[in-house]
Amino acid sequence: MARKSKKKQVRGIIPRKIKGFRDIDPNLNQLKQQIIENAREVYKLYGFEHWDTPVLEYADCLGKYMPDEDAAGEGVYSFRSPEVEPVYDTDGRDFKGEDGKTVMENAPLAMRYDLTAPLARKYSEDLLSQWKRSQLAQAPKPMLKRFQYGPVFRYEMKLAPGRFREFWQLDFDTVGTDDVTVDAECCMILSEALEAIGMSRDSYVVKVNNRKILKGLLQSLGVDTDEQEAAILRVVDKYDKIGLDNVRLELGEGRKEASGSAIKGLHLEADLRNGICDFLGQFIVEDPTKLPSRKAVLEAIKIDNSIAAEGLAELAKMDAVLETLGFDEERVVFDPTFVRGMAYYTGPIFEVESLLTITDEKGKERRVGSICGGGRYDGLVENLLGIKVPAVGASIGVDRLAALLEMADALPQQEDGPVLITHFDNDFALEYQKIAAELRAAGIKTEVYCGTYKKGGKALMRQLKYADSRNCPVAIMLGSNEHENGVVAVRDLKKGAELSKTVEDKKEWQRLVQSEVKRDELVEFVKKLID
Amino acid sequence: MARKSKKKQVRGIIPRKIKGFRDIDPNLNQLKQQIIENAREVYKLYGFEHWDTPVLEYADCLGKYMPDEDAAGEGVYSFRSPEVEPVYDTDGRDFKGEDGKTVMENAPLAMRYDLTAPLARKYSEDLLSQWKRSQLAQAPKPMLKRFQYGPVFRYEMKLAPGRFREFWQLDFDTVGTDDVTVDAECCMILSEALEAIGMSRDSYVVKVNNRKILKGLLQSLGVDTDEQEAAILRVVDKYDKIGLDNVRLELGEGRKEASGSAIKGLHLEADLRNGICDFLGQFIVEDPTKLPSRKAVLEAIKIDNSIAAEGLAELAKMDAVLETLGFDEERVVFDPTFVRGMAYYTGPIFEVESLLTITDEKGKERRVGSICGGGRYDGLVENLLGIKVPAVGASIGVDRLAALLEMADALPQQEDGPVLITHFDNDFALEYQKIAAELRAAGIKTEVYCGTYKKGGKALMRQLKYADSRNCPVAIMLGSNEHENGVVAVRDLKKGAELSKTVEDKKEWQRLVQSEVKRDELVEFVKKLID
Repeated sequence: MARKSKKKQVRGIIPRKIKGFRDIDPNLNQLKQQIIENAREVYKLYGFEHWDTPVLEYADCLGKYMPDEDAAGEGVYSFRSPEVEPVYDTDGRDFKGEDGKTVMENAPLAMRYDLTAPLARKYSEDLLSQWKRSQLAQAPKPMLKRFQYGPVFRYEMKLAPGRFREFWQLDFDTVGTDDVTVDAECCMILSEALEAIGMSRDSYVVKVNNRKILKGLLQSLGVDTDEQEAAILRVVDKYDKIGLDNVRLELGEGRKEASGSAIKGLHLEADLRNGICDFLGQFIVEDPTKLPSRKAVLEAIKIDNSIAAEGLAELAKMDAVLETLGFDEERVVFDPTFVRGMAYYTGPIFEVESLLTITDEKGKERRVGSICGGGRYDGLVENLLGIKVPAVGASIGVDRLAALLEMADALPQQEDGPVLITHFDNDFALEYQKIAAELRAAGIKTEVYCGTYKKGGKALMRQLKYADSRNCPVAIMLGSNEHENGVVAVRDLKKGAELSKTVEDKKEWQRLVQSEVKRDELVEFVKKLID
Repeated sequence: MARKSKKKQVRGIIPRKIKGFRDIDPNLNQLKQQIIENAREVYKLYGFEHWDTPVLEYADCLGKYMPDEDAAGEGVYSFRSPEVEPVYDTDGRDFKGEDGKTVMENAPLAMRYDLTAPLARKYSEDLLSQWKRSQLAQAPKPMLKRFQYGPVFRYEMKLAPGRFREFWQLDFDTVGTDDVTVDAECCMILSEALEAIGMSRDSYVVKVNNRKILKGLLQSLGVDTDEQEAAILRVVDKYDKIGLDNVRLELGEGRKEASGSAIKGLHLEADLRNGICDFLGQFIVEDPTKLPSRKAVLEAIKIDNSIAAEGLAELAKMDAVLETLGFDEERVVFDPTFVRGMAYYTGPIFEVESLLTITDEKGKERRVGSICGGGRYDGLVENLLGIKVPAVGASIGVDRLAALLEMADALPQQEDGPVLITHFDNDFALEYQKIAAELRAAGIKTEVYCGTYKKGGKALMRQLKYADSRNCPVAIMLGSNEHENGVVAVRDLKKGAELSKTVEDKKEWQRLVQSEVKRDELVEFVKKLID
């Protein structure tokens, strides 16, 4: 025999999931379904249509608009197509190599990282099927109001707790109009969708800002390059995490984090820095419900700049629509301080802040922040077609919202499992099936226990344990005694669980939770128990 | 200027989908949703729970059980993980290289090609979280009744028409019991689910066979290796496409296809070949509804072999359950001739054959064949855990079924688009929003046209054209004339489309389809129009 220390190792298969991917259990699925189906009905009520796009796309068609602009190009599950295909030139003709032959390659594919990039691909593809590239600039831009939901994929290298690499989004977008009435509509839809899902009106608030205001502010303070603007906005975007004082430091000489690591500053001149921080300081509040009225916010913004004025006019128009339709500050507020990470927003932006608190690992009550967001992005198809098409939309983070509702105990009622017909005696195997069919015909979920059957008390115990694990409300038992008397034993498992806390006597407990029911009155009896 | 012929080519981005991937339009989405939601309710009624698994898995955990065994290893979208991770040995410990260090690699990942392989991974993973590997053989195997639906991905190199690389499956499986009562339940569920989806009872039939019968037949004829059995079954599997005569040839000396290409034969001895073909010949029918009764089929099968006898006994037990619950031959038949491609089935197998006919490209009426299927596969987790766990389940091909319903004109009613409030006059922009809100509050889908607005007749024409493209039932118009009179113009677009075929006079047509409605009676009026 071989010596033990020389035992050859063999590679094995370990059943496991990829880090950041999950199995979703029935309760969470029910919650996700409730979120999706309720929001979907609101989207439809506003005239949106359900379009789906593939999970897998050509990487170049999805572009590099990763939501977090720092991670551009990274963060995507991407690989080479197994298929060799021609490469195209900018006019859609075969791209020829030096030898005059069409260049062929295994094109990079990518799993979608959001639902907006595929929308851009779809809209562009449809447009190109009707017009030549040279006509695109003049061609009318058809309107598209579409909603879509499904999983998206991000390869995040460091996974923070509660973050996943596969998660569901639930988007709605309107393409083809620059009318900010539609931006107001987005806010109303978010509000109505969340309430349809079951969130109370005091548990969330939709915050609205306009990129043009911050852009105009920076211009009025002398910022004249896109790079500088982007660098500043990246710092401002962090104020809710690091506080205004640290924003001031990062705009200036930089700062040290608690961990000791140094963060470089932008070294802006004092006037510019103060201009930015004074503006923010006016509006920063701990609690978004404490913001001034929308009209008061608009009046308080004094920026001598035409772009900012445009932004203010757009917000004023949105306010008029919201006011007319009764969406007051309880639901939608103006907050001129937030930025939203995505570089591509060009006008109004929105973010829904949850006001629910959760108890975190350290026992501290805290809020969870943003649960959905969106905005206007007139550069939607620019990367693909080189023209601007106005678009505005928003997205509900389904998994994030589900996790919030779970943590905040704002869960909908958990669905019961099926009625369990225990398998007591092989002689009645077909009778069990008949009972099940009768209950199902009455709309009652029913399962006949089909695990290995062994006669005796233990088998029943195991079956009742299974019923518990499945959250079954009722168990049904039928043996030869019952059969002779024309009855069936029915146990109320919910009542049983309740009473087991107070009733110690086994017989007494059984008398309280178990009934003998006439066979032909069974369905009615179970129905009443369940209702 | 550069000479034209030397103009440098630049690689371009062409907005396009990968071949075999699709955008799903609202009508098809509605149909898919109808299929999924109705089947889901039936699955739940039978006690199944909704579990989801990731789209992306470790390739080794999905195994190589591709549904078409000829394509084992191929046909999957697979790539290396961007993350470097340790390799494991068969005991789940780090796998060490010659240098004594843990071997690290970018593990192969794969997009799921079905929903059964991830179920095996999940079940195995759960089991391993409770037991050591050495305990697995003895450990009780928990029961799991789960359903799942979602997209699966196959890299098919040659794409036949109507085949896709991304398509949806809708599976239900029971793991942990070898009781064939559950196999009968599968047939009942398939039948009830299809009827819940809207298929009439005479438009489909569930066919049942048992792998043990064919296995026993071959054994009784002297086949004694798995390889030979598999080779024979692969030929038998084709009889519905090539006919019994060609099966006979392929089992013997081989044959030439119409195209001239030669197909090798298995060169079986005459007795064996005749034994197989005689058996098949007894039961092959053009129309599965013409099969003898289940009991007659069972009586007609005379095979002197214990495995075949076991298979027959299982079918007899299934028949008893089906009969007790009223599932007669109109819904479930026994057909001892079909094989189903997947190598892993070990007992009863089922296949739903559609009886609907479609008119194909050549104008010929034909049937489309199998729309769902399943069976018992006791080797579910063998690849991952090295133990046998009994399991049985089935899958509805959502896209295939949807395509069938579409082609066979068995479509559910197409959903109407929203009521369209035309944008007639900027002065009434807010009034349009108010009307929309009132209609939505009454549960009526409503959209305010928000495309670029230009005063004049043409703008209205464009909006009505848009309404047509959206399948809007009603258009609402409000200008200063109507406003002065306290009315709103309402046009019945469906009636309009209908009457435009017969009524030529424009004014007469408008009188018939358009009404002036008092502003405060608008919602009621529209509601009636739509109902």
